[in-house]
Amino acid sequence: MTTDAARPARRTRLTPERERELYAAVLELLREVGYDALTMDAVAARTRSSKATLYRQWKGKPELVVAALRDNHPVRAGNVDTGSLAGDLREVARRLCKKADDTALMRGITHAAERNPELGRAMRETLIQPEMDALHRMLDRAVERGELAPDRPAAHFLSEMITGALLTRPMLEDRHADEPYLLAYFDAVVLPALGVEG
Amino acid sequence: MTTDAARPARRTRLTPERERELYAAVLELLREVGYDALTMDAVAARTRSSKATLYRQWKGKPELVVAALRDNHPVRAGNVDTGSLAGDLREVARRLCKKADDTALMRGITHAAERNPELGRAMRETLIQPEMDALHRMLDRAVERGELAPDRPAAHFLSEMITGALLTRPMLEDRHADEPYLLAYFDAVVLPALGVEG
Repeated sequence: MTTDAARPARRTRLTPERERELYAAVLELLREVGYDALTMDAVAARTRSSKATLYRQWKGKPELVVAALRDNHPVRAGNVDTGSLAGDLREVARRLCKKADDTALMRGITHAAERNPELGRAMRETLIQPEMDALHRMLDRAVERGELAPDRPAAHFLSEMITGALLTRPMLEDRHADEPYLLAYFDAVVLPALGVEG
Repeated sequence: MTTDAARPARRTRLTPERERELYAAVLELLREVGYDALTMDAVAARTRSSKATLYRQWKGKPELVVAALRDNHPVRAGNVDTGSLAGDLREVARRLCKKADDTALMRGITHAAERNPELGRAMRETLIQPEMDALHRMLDRAVERGELAPDRPAAHFLSEMITGALLTRPMLEDRHADEPYLLAYFDAVVLPALGVEG
């Protein structure tokens, strides 16, 4: 009894496999019903877990959804370091394409975040800021190597240029931003704006 | 009797004032309930018109909504002609900012268009293509004046650069793309990518 009391339930950790199962179920539900209609009850039912477990492990629905998205996140710019800025950016372009199917999912979530400030905050903290930090480190390395001018104005808009390319094509042309498109965009827009030779 | 038969009801035109009232009601409803939940019944009720009138004048809900959006459209790049590409683009940036409140509305519609192919088609035909054509004419004039190289790759991505700037800031930073932001983006990204001097 004393042993149980000393090991309170809230310290219980899910196994990585179990966590991944839960995240997969959350993404499945997101695709099926969208963020607004997704409930913790539905996640609990589909994963045969208790709502208490879900709330213990994650603070609430925005945090659970964002954790699931991060687990499935299409870019991890943090691991990209090819030795040149042009190479790094092209690798980012390739990684962005690999999960093109997730574009609709991310756009749905982005739309939901406009109406749900808590979701927007969780997304910015957990998904967006780490990527922006990684992109800034990429630019800092390019400045250190002498590839990029330290005061180049376009450097402040790198995230905007990248995100813009991903979001715009589906809207303007009803086509995914695939690898040839993104590589062409990076060569035509991003590198010249940064004043960097391909 | 013969006179009435010769003037069938479907030829009746709404007055411009009445049309504008209808469009205003459609935009009001769009902001309140979003595209999916907007019904022709609700438009008819709010504008005290018959559904028959609405269907006679517009083919259906996607066409009515897109006509209302066009009436309220934030950019009309077609009228911009300042004599220089830098001037034209800065004027486009200024016009884009004037109706920043519409960003949420347009993003909602864009999201709805992913699930409604007819809406997507109507948007591309009525809203997007005319703007893209106007931007291409702007670029053609710059080539004719010798400001822009005729084979500059970034010219193919002008719409993407512009739309990206508008959509990305609200998502990444939870702030509107206001005039100082857009002008800075145009100077830092769009003009250098096009190889045009500010």
